[in-house]
Amino acid sequence: MVWGKGLARRLYGLTGVVWSKYLDIDERGRLIVKLKGYKIDIAKLVSDKQLPGAHIRILPIIRYMMDQVYEAFMEAFRKFGYKGAFKPVYPLKSNSTPIVVDTIWRYGIKYSWGFNAGTYPEVKLISKYINEKPRLLVVDGIKDNKLLDLLSKMCDSWEIIVDIESMRDADLLSKYQDLNIGLRVKVTSKSSGLWSHSSGLDSKFGLLINTLDEMVEKHPWVPNRTVLLHVHAGSQITDKNRLEDIIRETIILYNNLVKTGFKNIRYIDFGGGLAYPYIEASNHVFSANYSLNEYAEILVKELVKSAENTPDIVFEGGRYIVAPHRITVTKIIDTRPYSTSDRGETSYPIVEEIKNTENIKELVYVSRKAREVITRLMLKFPINIESRRILEKLLTSINEAITSKAYEIIHRDNDKALEELIKTPNYVLEELVSPTRRFFASFSLFSHLPDTIIADQYFKIIPLQRLNEKPEVLGVISDLTCDSMGEYSSFITFLPNNIEYETEDLFTSLDHKLMFIPGKTLRLKGVPLHIPRKNEDYYIAFLDTGAYQDMLSMNHNLLNGYPEIIIDIINDNLKIIYENLESAENYPL
Amino acid sequence: MVWGKGLARRLYGLTGVVWSKYLDIDERGRLIVKLKGYKIDIAKLVSDKQLPGAHIRILPIIRYMMDQVYEAFMEAFRKFGYKGAFKPVYPLKSNSTPIVVDTIWRYGIKYSWGFNAGTYPEVKLISKYINEKPRLLVVDGIKDNKLLDLLSKMCDSWEIIVDIESMRDADLLSKYQDLNIGLRVKVTSKSSGLWSHSSGLDSKFGLLINTLDEMVEKHPWVPNRTVLLHVHAGSQITDKNRLEDIIRETIILYNNLVKTGFKNIRYIDFGGGLAYPYIEASNHVFSANYSLNEYAEILVKELVKSAENTPDIVFEGGRYIVAPHRITVTKIIDTRPYSTSDRGETSYPIVEEIKNTENIKELVYVSRKAREVITRLMLKFPINIESRRILEKLLTSINEAITSKAYEIIHRDNDKALEELIKTPNYVLEELVSPTRRFFASFSLFSHLPDTIIADQYFKIIPLQRLNEKPEVLGVISDLTCDSMGEYSSFITFLPNNIEYETEDLFTSLDHKLMFIPGKTLRLKGVPLHIPRKNEDYYIAFLDTGAYQDMLSMNHNLLNGYPEIIIDIINDNLKIIYENLESAENYPL
Repeated sequence: MVWGKGLARRLYGLTGVVWSKYLDIDERGRLIVKLKGYKIDIAKLVSDKQLPGAHIRILPIIRYMMDQVYEAFMEAFRKFGYKGAFKPVYPLKSNSTPIVVDTIWRYGIKYSWGFNAGTYPEVKLISKYINEKPRLLVVDGIKDNKLLDLLSKMCDSWEIIVDIESMRDADLLSKYQDLNIGLRVKVTSKSSGLWSHSSGLDSKFGLLINTLDEMVEKHPWVPNRTVLLHVHAGSQITDKNRLEDIIRETIILYNNLVKTGFKNIRYIDFGGGLAYPYIEASNHVFSANYSLNEYAEILVKELVKSAENTPDIVFEGGRYIVAPHRITVTKIIDTRPYSTSDRGETSYPIVEEIKNTENIKELVYVSRKAREVITRLMLKFPINIESRRILEKLLTSINEAITSKAYEIIHRDNDKALEELIKTPNYVLEELVSPTRRFFASFSLFSHLPDTIIADQYFKIIPLQRLNEKPEVLGVISDLTCDSMGEYSSFITFLPNNIEYETEDLFTSLDHKLMFIPGKTLRLKGVPLHIPRKNEDYYIAFLDTGAYQDMLSMNHNLLNGYPEIIIDIINDNLKIIYENLESAENYPL
Repeated sequence: MVWGKGLARRLYGLTGVVWSKYLDIDERGRLIVKLKGYKIDIAKLVSDKQLPGAHIRILPIIRYMMDQVYEAFMEAFRKFGYKGAFKPVYPLKSNSTPIVVDTIWRYGIKYSWGFNAGTYPEVKLISKYINEKPRLLVVDGIKDNKLLDLLSKMCDSWEIIVDIESMRDADLLSKYQDLNIGLRVKVTSKSSGLWSHSSGLDSKFGLLINTLDEMVEKHPWVPNRTVLLHVHAGSQITDKNRLEDIIRETIILYNNLVKTGFKNIRYIDFGGGLAYPYIEASNHVFSANYSLNEYAEILVKELVKSAENTPDIVFEGGRYIVAPHRITVTKIIDTRPYSTSDRGETSYPIVEEIKNTENIKELVYVSRKAREVITRLMLKFPINIESRRILEKLLTSINEAITSKAYEIIHRDNDKALEELIKTPNYVLEELVSPTRRFFASFSLFSHLPDTIIADQYFKIIPLQRLNEKPEVLGVISDLTCDSMGEYSSFITFLPNNIEYETEDLFTSLDHKLMFIPGKTLRLKGVPLHIPRKNEDYYIAFLDTGAYQDMLSMNHNLLNGYPEIIIDIINDNLKIIYENLESAENYPL
């Protein structure tokens, strides 16, 4: 067996630009954060204080992401000889936790990093910052006089642009001559479709062209005061073609507007959309088929090629900047069998049949038969404890027999068996990637990872210890809420063909479930984990929980708040601060 | 035209047991709450204080629902001569807002209404209540010593039952001999399926029979200390057959357990599941095909028929008790055209073709052709402002022509045309129920109606004024968040065949969209509303927002909190309290 750090890194996705740099596995198999020569044992941070878990915020990662974005655009500017400026703004909706905003504001001075706000409380939050050299503040959303009054007062220390999105906005802004204006216009890019919900003519955001026409007629000052063209492309665009379509259309809109009286537009804002790679795989819903550098190049290249002038680029990515800074750690406090652990002594004919199959094809056939046997039994069986007892044992025996047999055949036939398995989706493959344990963790998905509930968002999961041991089982992660939605069991693996492995490495060690099919992206229905030993503190971490999760946090079952561990490097010194420790009381240990 | 109070009540669903009693429309067309002879103008409560909106909590409705539930069971007990007791418990997860819990606790004294808690903070919340006559407190979820210590201390003023759901629970509880035990067992009812997620063997909750067997072997005290059998049926069960299956299976489990050593089980808890009627229609996902009285009868009848003894019934309904007590009111602050209002002067051949159709069949045919024309145009058109201008006008012209023509044909052919329209789902019908306006309201769906985001939950919507005027248009409700998910446009109508109407009443008055098809349930894609007049305060209300929405509230775009208006009747006197008014500042007016 070659199991070790290399395969563990592959399994848990410690690859890609962020995690290959910041996370490592030490010789004892523990997950460590690497920062400027410091090595921080994450689990120890939590267990030392006897915590049920914590949000670990690594502030240098925010700065790193800002650097990455800035550098990517600078490189594209150089490559294509673009003369416009790069004007990044951070959309507060992604995460307006004070320490996050503060980090971006402080570090942003070198890049003159601005902000984007969509509501009055967001503007209020940012209004307390005084810039010596005014930075950009782009304000969209619904306005009223209270908001515009506040913005007027802020004009000394911010370069403020207020989006117009309706006739009402223009009516309101006619009384605020000191405020520059952005036009937010709907895009109808062909790839997203005319009737698309988050962009297109039916979109919640932006102006129709005909509304714009009416507005210019009523408010002839609009073209002169407009300095920004803004479109809403949608969040987390993973398809490069769609991205290119939106950029092209926006530049044509820009050219048309400049030619028809909007002479002062000097900023172009393509909206959010830069996808954060929640997994490192292309052509996947959780990952873009382009990189950060490609993103910058597509934008700049298209501007150089088609734009009338050289507008400054307003970059509005928020998710990309803050997603990786927060790691959510939680302790496993109970594991329960997913099916019975007692196999029973009786031998069932259908189980014998499974054991006697010779290859995957036969196994698929007999497994289907087994499913039918169970369904028939369910209909015939009296509903009582004795029959439940038998049924549970029979189910477990069948599932275990299928897994064992597939394990045996794959060991014998290797690639041939795996190929047969993935040829058509079938119950054998499904069984091979299904969980056998439920891991109860001391947290709430509703509170700490709300996007798993709202949007089926994928997050990488990694145990914080025993990473030098091959995972033992596939498990479902259950939270503390009395809600059946409070479960998470999605796990995507990819083992490139050029990585060394033995057949044994493809399987978990105890329940013999499949973790990899070399060369293929595999979606498991459980997370590869170890069974905690008696009195062992076993922690798992969800990566990339730094965007939106703080804002969408819910209070289900009164579980809210979580200890915070803030890690920073100040003057080359490591600084670790614990906050919100009193919230630990709400969670079992 | 016969439009008036009667049709308005039908359209907005002021029917059913709660809203036909508590809500009415006054002679000025305003929505009023009726309480003990008091008539309260809801919009006035909000506009008097210049609020962007408010959660209006009507506490007597909570008491009414408790009465209804209690009475339904008493009636069923009498009808079937059942001798067991009725032991309601309120699950705190449904809504643990202090005023709600307090109302249930105070009023619950007469019924000895107990509670169900699933986490430490929920138990802590309820621990401050001291009962003279101990009421039931059923505790499920994940335990630890801290929680069990607290429960031990509460034994004087509460009758505490702690659920065992795993071997770990039994290990923990072996050291707490003073605590009674409930068994939470998985059910596998045939109608929900063996592999069902929220119930069944894969469920997050409850014990497998084989785990129970192992537990009894390890902890022989378990059978003697067990006083309650508990199953998790799932929330909001709308199908009567499924309900019956679960009840039957649970009673058989109960009988088996009683016979095999669990002699002290005296409570049976079928879990939540009683569906709250979010709409008044049977056979619908948002509404059960049984009533509260039928629910009680099914339970009691089955117990009388099959149960070995006469266990007390623990009733765990939470949604049913608290859903209607909260009404969420919000102000419309901007309306925008969904498509352009400018139809253009040019006449398009395809529009002429639509105008020349003679019946629904022809209209359906030409409409399909029009869609194809647009799709072809989209591919051919250059992407620039001029073509966008034309495209928007063409789209509007086509949509308006289809609507006008359908309106004309239905007026002429009446039932025949409607029948033809619903025969097969088609684009004409889709167009006829589509919105033409976007109404921006001063609230956040993420904060105030999170279940619309999480679970596509349906809520009734009703304007608070002009209810004596027929609605003018169908509109999408958009919230303040910079999130394309922050939109709501679902509206279900049902006009019984025996109600008097004229053809004109089926349509909105301005955009001529269809609101009803008599005798059929119709799902509109927009809400029937009036266009606010200049300087008019136009409010809408979402009904039945009292369960879960308080707990799942999110902080998207920093929009959280909302003014609260608490309405109560104390000693026959109306009492209205305003709270949380400072949160109004975050919302535009």
